[in-house]
Amino acid sequence: MSAPLRLGIAGLGTVGIGVLRIIRQHASLLAERTGRDILITAVSAREKSKDRGLPLDRYDWEEDPVALATRDDVDVFVELIGGDEGPAKDAVEAALAAGKDVVTANKALLAIHGQALAKAAEGAGRALRYEAAVAGGIPVIKALSEGLAGNEITRVMGVMNGSCNYILTRMESAGLSYEEVFAEADGLGYLEADPQLDVGGIDAAHKLAILSSLAFGTVVDFSGITLEGIDRVSIEDIHAAADMGYKIKLLGVAQKTGRGLEQRMQPCLVPDSSPLGQLDGGTNMVVLEGDAVGQIVLRGPGAGEGPTASAVMADVCDIARGLRGPVFGKPAATLASVPRAHADLPAPYYLRMTLEDKPGALAKIASVLGDAGISIDRMRQYGHADTTAPVLIVTHKTTPDALTRALAAMEATRVLSGPAVALRIEAV
Amino acid sequence: MSAPLRLGIAGLGTVGIGVLRIIRQHASLLAERTGRDILITAVSAREKSKDRGLPLDRYDWEEDPVALATRDDVDVFVELIGGDEGPAKDAVEAALAAGKDVVTANKALLAIHGQALAKAAEGAGRALRYEAAVAGGIPVIKALSEGLAGNEITRVMGVMNGSCNYILTRMESAGLSYEEVFAEADGLGYLEADPQLDVGGIDAAHKLAILSSLAFGTVVDFSGITLEGIDRVSIEDIHAAADMGYKIKLLGVAQKTGRGLEQRMQPCLVPDSSPLGQLDGGTNMVVLEGDAVGQIVLRGPGAGEGPTASAVMADVCDIARGLRGPVFGKPAATLASVPRAHADLPAPYYLRMTLEDKPGALAKIASVLGDAGISIDRMRQYGHADTTAPVLIVTHKTTPDALTRALAAMEATRVLSGPAVALRIEAV
Repeated sequence: MSAPLRLGIAGLGTVGIGVLRIIRQHASLLAERTGRDILITAVSAREKSKDRGLPLDRYDWEEDPVALATRDDVDVFVELIGGDEGPAKDAVEAALAAGKDVVTANKALLAIHGQALAKAAEGAGRALRYEAAVAGGIPVIKALSEGLAGNEITRVMGVMNGSCNYILTRMESAGLSYEEVFAEADGLGYLEADPQLDVGGIDAAHKLAILSSLAFGTVVDFSGITLEGIDRVSIEDIHAAADMGYKIKLLGVAQKTGRGLEQRMQPCLVPDSSPLGQLDGGTNMVVLEGDAVGQIVLRGPGAGEGPTASAVMADVCDIARGLRGPVFGKPAATLASVPRAHADLPAPYYLRMTLEDKPGALAKIASVLGDAGISIDRMRQYGHADTTAPVLIVTHKTTPDALTRALAAMEATRVLSGPAVALRIEAV
Repeated sequence: MSAPLRLGIAGLGTVGIGVLRIIRQHASLLAERTGRDILITAVSAREKSKDRGLPLDRYDWEEDPVALATRDDVDVFVELIGGDEGPAKDAVEAALAAGKDVVTANKALLAIHGQALAKAAEGAGRALRYEAAVAGGIPVIKALSEGLAGNEITRVMGVMNGSCNYILTRMESAGLSYEEVFAEADGLGYLEADPQLDVGGIDAAHKLAILSSLAFGTVVDFSGITLEGIDRVSIEDIHAAADMGYKIKLLGVAQKTGRGLEQRMQPCLVPDSSPLGQLDGGTNMVVLEGDAVGQIVLRGPGAGEGPTASAVMADVCDIARGLRGPVFGKPAATLASVPRAHADLPAPYYLRMTLEDKPGALAKIASVLGDAGISIDRMRQYGHADTTAPVLIVTHKTTPDALTRALAAMEATRVLSGPAVALRIEAV
């Protein structure tokens, strides 16, 4: 058996404690599987005295994560602090500079500083691994970078924020408004301290940026993501979409187009019979498409102590087995900087609007769409009691540009009693 | 860049040609991802002159796969011949003995001879990898052995024979009998030359045996699988199950029980709203459950040129990156030989029977079940035109033993107009 692998763990929140638990409970299993004992040398967290439900006295305590990351008796620095600046970044940089392997669950850090950190890791000949940063317990980093290594990846999609999916599915099942379910989720502790990280789509977009880089061999480009949160999704749209056979999901999509790399994180409609459409509650799903393999769908818990710790341990075991290699699937220096393509691929769209109930209103809308070159796949006008008429339209494929022009022209007809809602329908 | 990795490929059927295509089309992508050129030195197949749609003159030709496997200019022997004896086995053994790494798509070979081959590979310090042997393009071997390495695996389930799932879903959608759809599938070339490999569940059981070994650290034990094919699944049962909210799937299940390792491949009912229940057509699905991660579901194409070649290439890329390690997740010498537990865990069951239409018939059946300690969850008696009455029962959890006794006692009541059908309902 090889020498033990010695970990230093910074951050003892839910995930850190989960990692401690796995290493305590499965010491012999881990040793059998990796051929090495996996030990924890030292830990670090903000409050030493806090009761975490586990005795910590067998580990050395470091107040400073940088000191922990550079200890001589640490081989692998496990960063579970979080945040894209401050102690997490300082400690990861220090660990790599000191020749340590690094495992992190920090999606923000990688989405913002991934390229620089990858160069640092590869320059030092060390691993920087981050299975836990994307989609919790689902081994999607491994599936994409290793399991599909023989493919040119054509598209990556995912529902990667469990809180948003919980809110959207709860709105539908309980018939509640966004505001009501948001308050409920916040009260249950399902949301980040800054809820915009969840409902604004930022957390999910961090994950998408990482997957994009791996999938397409491009420099991580978080700021290139077209980003829209779920706060404008109304219960009316959820019901109307369901009526047309769709679900609304906060869906991340990355794909190469003729013009560059398109990355979007936005509420989209997907068919309710598709795996993505059937994804309820806090579960995550990632869809990987490659030229040889076709479509692979991965589903599992996207957060929580056990699942995230499971992903951290997958990385630790890989390092114990000697697996290193480039951080984003190919050497960081060769990652391409590609232009940003802003959602210019044609797609069908869902439109919901309320028309003034007067003769010719619907004809005006239909002719505006026709003038913009947009043809209608399905249309429904609902019975109504007041003086406005709810109308749903599913278009055939059209470009976002044509749609924007059509929406402006609709507005100008003065037959709308309020702004029209337009949501992309993603082919899944 | 390291030295090129040189492959010798034996077997140029669908999968072999798929591998050739990937290596031709993605040479530079593969080199970037692995840090090495991946080359094919020589190939071997039964008929040299057959037109395979690709020119083969750039590769050396070997008539004998053993000669191919042991060539000095081959680093990795890729076995795509198939079959658990004969040239495939001879060539894999010869390759390992000659110090070559081996990649195979041969589930039968591993299910029958996995233990001996793993010892040979580990003794020689070489890799024996087989991602393509289980569930086609789904990277399930990697997910289980690496992605969930921090977990004690608690259960593995899967729909792993696309032909069987095609037959079952086609029966339901078209309302056709098993015999009719079997003939259709056979005519379309969906079935193996020996269709019992598919419909008898043997092919899927080979895959389950491999997953079990990986999941539970046990010696591969194909003959320990309780095996039942789909030929006794009737269209009546498919309709009746649907009526109760279930689908019938040929489902493989492996789990540790108090008595040992239980491995079953048999038609089971699963809820129609579950991911397994929603799996239509030839697609495969594997469900992995671990103590930390909870449940992970993997879905994708289980066969075909591109998907299977994608899995072969994942193994080739891992070897190019230097990843070796034990064949079944821990050293073959330490794999446990555990007793076979024969489906003794309690489960709910689906029962379908036809009763003679005379007073007290249903009461007799109910009292037989009560006497066996089996309680009824749901019961339906259908309207009928003739002198027999169709009855469906979903029981609460009971043991297979109690069920067998109850079925015998039902038979003895002489109120059944034919044998009762009993199918296990798997909790998913």
